[in-house]
Amino acid sequence: RINSDRLWDSLMDMAKIGPGVAGGNNRQTLTDEDAEGRRVFQQWCEAEGMTMGLDKLGNMFAHRDGTDPTLPPVMIGSHLDTQPTGGKYDGVLGVLAGLEIIRTLNDTGIKTKHPIEVVNWTNEEGARFSPPMMSSSVFAGMYSTEWVYDREDADGKTVGDELARIGWLGDEDVGARKMAAFFELHIEQGPILEDENIDVGVVTHGQGLKWLQVTLTGKSSHTGSTPMKNRVNAGLGMARITQLVDEIAWSHAPLAVGAVGHCDVYPNSRNIIPGKVVFTIDFRHPTQEVIDDMEQRFRKGAQVIIDEIGLTMEIEQVGQFDPVTFDEGCVSAVRRAAERLGYAHRDIVSGAGHDACLINRVAPTAMVMCPCVDGLSHNEAEEISKEWAAAGTDVLFHAVLETAGI
Amino acid sequence: RINSDRLWDSLMDMAKIGPGVAGGNNRQTLTDEDAEGRRVFQQWCEAEGMTMGLDKLGNMFAHRDGTDPTLPPVMIGSHLDTQPTGGKYDGVLGVLAGLEIIRTLNDTGIKTKHPIEVVNWTNEEGARFSPPMMSSSVFAGMYSTEWVYDREDADGKTVGDELARIGWLGDEDVGARKMAAFFELHIEQGPILEDENIDVGVVTHGQGLKWLQVTLTGKSSHTGSTPMKNRVNAGLGMARITQLVDEIAWSHAPLAVGAVGHCDVYPNSRNIIPGKVVFTIDFRHPTQEVIDDMEQRFRKGAQVIIDEIGLTMEIEQVGQFDPVTFDEGCVSAVRRAAERLGYAHRDIVSGAGHDACLINRVAPTAMVMCPCVDGLSHNEAEEISKEWAAAGTDVLFHAVLETAGI
Ligand SMILES: NC(=O)NCCC(=O)O
Ligand SMILES: NC(=O)NCCC(=O)O
Repeated sequence: RINSDRLWDSLMDMAKIGPGVAGGNNRQTLTDEDAEGRRVFQQWCEAEGMTMGLDKLGNMFAHRDGTDPTLPPVMIGSHLDTQPTGGKYDGVLGVLAGLEIIRTLNDTGIKTKHPIEVVNWTNEEGARFSPPMMSSSVFAGMYSTEWVYDREDADGKTVGDELARIGWLGDEDVGARKMAAFFELHIEQGPILEDENIDVGVVTHGQGLKWLQVTLTGKSSHTGSTPMKNRVNAGLGMARITQLVDEIAWSHAPLAVGAVGHCDVYPNSRNIIPGKVVFTIDFRHPTQEVIDDMEQRFRKGAQVIIDEIGLTMEIEQVGQFDPVTFDEGCVSAVRRAAERLGYAHRDIVSGAGHDACLINRVAPTAMVMCPCVDGLSHNEAEEISKEWAAAGTDVLFHAVLETAGI
Repeated sequence: RINSDRLWDSLMDMAKIGPGVAGGNNRQTLTDEDAEGRRVFQQWCEAEGMTMGLDKLGNMFAHRDGTDPTLPPVMIGSHLDTQPTGGKYDGVLGVLAGLEIIRTLNDTGIKTKHPIEVVNWTNEEGARFSPPMMSSSVFAGMYSTEWVYDREDADGKTVGDELARIGWLGDEDVGARKMAAFFELHIEQGPILEDENIDVGVVTHGQGLKWLQVTLTGKSSHTGSTPMKNRVNAGLGMARITQLVDEIAWSHAPLAVGAVGHCDVYPNSRNIIPGKVVFTIDFRHPTQEVIDDMEQRFRKGAQVIIDEIGLTMEIEQVGQFDPVTFDEGCVSAVRRAAERLGYAHRDIVSGAGHDACLINRVAPTAMVMCPCVDGLSHNEAEEISKEWAAAGTDVLFHAVLETAGI
């Protein structure tokens, strides 16, 4: 079993970098805080005798040799970047659990046949730059590195420039590295495991996602002297579409979800009718048919709304991934590990997107989940117990050991 | 008659200060651009032999002596500050029309019995700092100067600090100055005069206003892994209330108006359910009973919405003025001037708030309106014709002359 105190101490040490305002973290991708988090992680890895690989998107691969040099590594990992109001565990747990496994192997002198690599994927969150799981998507061949370099944040800064600026731009082509398998431990970010008093989620599937950025254009005018019938109110269009999204998601209850998380209103003045709004819709479901249905109904319903108000609409897809079925062999390894170690476990579908969902396209992949308090995530108040972290990491450890071979 | 080319040139010169991004202006109150606009206005006034008074809120009073030193001045004015995406005429026309009247008096050597003062009221727009008509409200005794000094913009900067920083903090107590009457020329900011092919609006009333800033608090959580039934979505609450405001305004058609112009969403991330929103509702109507009814129905309806979603709500009043009936004598002077000069005119209710609406509480007051293209205002594309500007200024001129006496 791994050393749960040491794992917890490392989680708390990482959380000191890029603190939030309410006990969580604001360590967004490609910021100075992200650079500092990477530096600390690299030091910890090097202290364990690992060597660090770095690719052209700043993905970090900490390498521990195996006994058979002809075998590709088994990879473990997740991400160190956070939301603007992020928790201390989302992503971080999966990376530092990988490090804890290496530390445990070193303590006990265990050598594995396959090398093991602990990975930190760049910009999983998609908060500063869309799409989310940006670099694991490129690794899986979904986008080109060049396309990603040009992605802009709200200030117009690009991924390419920011990666160079913070000093984490590597030489290795993204996706060049081979692997035998990939394992990711992540907090559930939902309420199911805690509600059912279960320690370990064996993730069999991941739901698919569609992000649509909507721009509505109307006419900015005076809130006092413009009669109601002369208004072309883009804010009212956004309000009605926000409700439509909610209704569409409910119509596929309980599995579907849908919400508008991000909205910008222009010019955003108390006495100006909004002439333009830009907002993003997030639809998810475990099956592609339902996601497609939700998108179509949104497009149809939104068209009716904008026609009624007299708005024009542009829709851009800013994130997308298909529902995922994880590798049967890897999933069984996780389930066996949970059973062997005596943890209460159940199969679960991941509600969030994860780097593992993308890597699953190019290598046998599985995920382990641990509960989080009240299912709360993407919130600084995100919390887990040391025991949950330890259980998840133990299961990850045994699944990796079985796959890497001793 | 006034010199319409000279008036137009001055309007265009002022528009060079704090240009917007689309042909209009961004010369928000108490910015460096506002300071520059004030400096230029002061130079123009001094070139006409006027002396400049300045009070503790930066209200500027350019003074031209009358022939009877015992009489209080007749004032003419409006505001030089603009919306973030403002036009070239909203407010500016009323100040520079006053200056043009002085220039015409000087050209023709006319002396008036009453002194004449041309006024620039600080922060009429209420965009950067609420409330709107901030300094004319203090002049009229509605708020204290100290209370206004502490008003904050979105960056937490205060009126008091910014006024001192830009160098336009005067010594005179706000409201200390007496006046015989106040006249304001303003663009209509609505479509009525242009639609009816009328040159001059004789403003008999101003509608009342209520601004309510609403803060809804829910729970930020993950858009993917939080089941619909576990959400406490503040953004959905804002969307439903935005629609409610629209419905309430329509129910009092055609006179009532209502909209949400300003919204901030927290943390505003594509994959986080909004845990908090702050937005402002603007309700207006010519009668107080209807404004009260709209507010009560909003409060009731919003309570139902937030209870259904599980949100908490705080409501703060951030702007308010009662419906206005302008002074019969001053209004008749405006109507007589329009008739005498042969302009097509009609009585009209002001849809927007104006400094004149506040000054009307402490001095006989009236307003003149000129049409604007498509009724568009609070938009950089705001436009008027030189002829409309001249007609309005001529009527203002004659009404002022009659009141100030020759
Ligand atoms: N795990 C996680 O929060 N990933 C970010 C992408 C998503 O919104 O699912
Ligand atoms: N005239 C004008 O736009 N004033 C600003 C206050 C208001 O919104 O009515």
